[in-house]
Amino acid sequence: MGGDDAPEMVVAGLDLAAERHPGGRFLLVGDEARLTPLLAKYKRARAASTVRHAAESVTGDMKPTVALRMRDSSMRLAIDAVANGEASGVVSAGNTGALLALAKIVVKTLPGIDRPAMAATVPSARGDVVMLDLGANVVCDTRNLVEFAVMGEMFARTVLGIPEPRIGLLNVGSEELKGDERLRRAADVLRSSHIGERFHGFVEGHDIAAGTTDVIVTDGFTGNVALKTGEGALKLMGGLLRQVFTSSLSAKIAYLFARTGLDRLREWLDPRRYNGAVMVGLNGVVVKSHGGTDALGFAHAVDVAMNMVEHGFTAGIADGLRKLAEQEKLAALAEPDADALALTGEPPLAEAK
Amino acid sequence: MGGDDAPEMVVAGLDLAAERHPGGRFLLVGDEARLTPLLAKYKRARAASTVRHAAESVTGDMKPTVALRMRDSSMRLAIDAVANGEASGVVSAGNTGALLALAKIVVKTLPGIDRPAMAATVPSARGDVVMLDLGANVVCDTRNLVEFAVMGEMFARTVLGIPEPRIGLLNVGSEELKGDERLRRAADVLRSSHIGERFHGFVEGHDIAAGTTDVIVTDGFTGNVALKTGEGALKLMGGLLRQVFTSSLSAKIAYLFARTGLDRLREWLDPRRYNGAVMVGLNGVVVKSHGGTDALGFAHAVDVAMNMVEHGFTAGIADGLRKLAEQEKLAALAEPDADALALTGEPPLAEAK
Repeated sequence: MGGDDAPEMVVAGLDLAAERHPGGRFLLVGDEARLTPLLAKYKRARAASTVRHAAESVTGDMKPTVALRMRDSSMRLAIDAVANGEASGVVSAGNTGALLALAKIVVKTLPGIDRPAMAATVPSARGDVVMLDLGANVVCDTRNLVEFAVMGEMFARTVLGIPEPRIGLLNVGSEELKGDERLRRAADVLRSSHIGERFHGFVEGHDIAAGTTDVIVTDGFTGNVALKTGEGALKLMGGLLRQVFTSSLSAKIAYLFARTGLDRLREWLDPRRYNGAVMVGLNGVVVKSHGGTDALGFAHAVDVAMNMVEHGFTAGIADGLRKLAEQEKLAALAEPDADALALTGEPPLAEAK
Repeated sequence: MGGDDAPEMVVAGLDLAAERHPGGRFLLVGDEARLTPLLAKYKRARAASTVRHAAESVTGDMKPTVALRMRDSSMRLAIDAVANGEASGVVSAGNTGALLALAKIVVKTLPGIDRPAMAATVPSARGDVVMLDLGANVVCDTRNLVEFAVMGEMFARTVLGIPEPRIGLLNVGSEELKGDERLRRAADVLRSSHIGERFHGFVEGHDIAAGTTDVIVTDGFTGNVALKTGEGALKLMGGLLRQVFTSSLSAKIAYLFARTGLDRLREWLDPRRYNGAVMVGLNGVVVKSHGGTDALGFAHAVDVAMNMVEHGFTAGIADGLRKLAEQEKLAALAEPDADALALTGEPPLAEAK
């Protein structure tokens, strides 16, 4: 029921996803009265799914604390299905803060994980790059950053299929002395962990699009700003190119000649192709679709969830964390910072503690 | 003497700048034995400048603490000339940390300013936008952010010529509850300050390129990452476009048809056009050119400095700060955070205290 054009966008997206994943079965949770007529329209979605009625739904502007108290929201019932093993994963285009809060409480974090993070892929000159945290934790300590690196590495291995992913820690300079103590300590821990040589060290903002590393690790504030800044810059460029190719007859002719390449470029950079942020560090697959996306974008978020389930992402992360714990690296770190905020800057979760 | 291709790049840039600013007089500080033959080659630079010999120079990898102890470096003598009123401003393509440290100690900060910041313009869909801090302060408190807003407003007024600049505070969401306490308090102070309605509130990463506000205020860590992420995304797009237009004969023909528009776009986004970060909050004009730029880029950094001098930027900021102090807004804020780092993640300055 979440997202700007829900529930139709979701059902239409599911229709596309059902075609791409012939063996997939979907549990569609929401207002049955609204879903039934939509399923009559989207045949493949209907054939692949079961509807579970939910009397209420979490709204976009609802505080996570309020959403946590709702026992019968569509979001809650969908997450419950993951927690009780009925579903392998959940995809939602709804309220991010509520989804993260519910997932943490119902699906729970993996043993040893202090805080889950949001991860997604972004385009780079050398192929897709995983970036995390994208906003689940506004403030992060050394331990969080180290855990993000372990989870990001597993994301790159399982979802992007990179056997030896290289990991970079986002900083204001690549020199070892740059940045704050928290970053320097995280770098030290990673260098001596099982990640070892795959830890590239510090990277800077321009390294994201350059694809210097396969994984970019940062706190949720910086990651959120970087993700949106990069998207904004690409969007600006896209808009300017549109202007160029419609500004004159000669430019319109040019577009016809360069169409194949330009269309491929647009397709490759299409934000819908990067839709689907994964909440990593949970004991199950939880994917957040952008609320403003369309059916194609939502189908991509479903692809991401299917990928993670099929490649044993959750078990892989648990394994990486076990290795880290064995090396007793985490034990050497300070306790998590009690002042650090959880969730995307949502004070409500702090209240809920 | 600073920059990858110095001193020739600097002299060649000065040659261009001398043509653009016929009344300008330049004090060229550096190794006379290297500058003299260059000035024989660049006639306009020679006609407009006086050479001051400096026996030594600050290197790119030198710690600010070491640079601070050098009394006769070209950087020090150039900054001395600003402090003693001989020059109206200084432009350097050298070591950023050293330049900021020297400028703070020699030129000094304006009365009431806790920390100077680095500001520069970036491209947006609605024209150039001022962003600060770009890395002078890795950690910032509420007071710093408020001061940055006042200085950014003056930058937009005097350098970009925007009579009523709109100011945004970079955050992970535009809702009032997002972000940390530090950001929420800065927003409260700005809303009730003389900036008042020109304070737009929180903006997100995508608002930078969208040009939602004329000024983007953020801490030095986030600003540095955002600046470089945006630059990286534009560079990626530029590289991909080059590939598109060289990939086939048909695409090469297309380039010829669209050349005017594409060249204009490239020119507009040319990083050299945005070269010249201003160290705002100092009692004089201090501009940092990118070390890797060429003559055209360096000339632009000189343009920025000339602009600031001609438009009374320093006096304008002092006036804005006085207004803020009169409203006793700053007094209501907590004392500066003693743990906050000065300079671009350079611990040496902390040692120097």
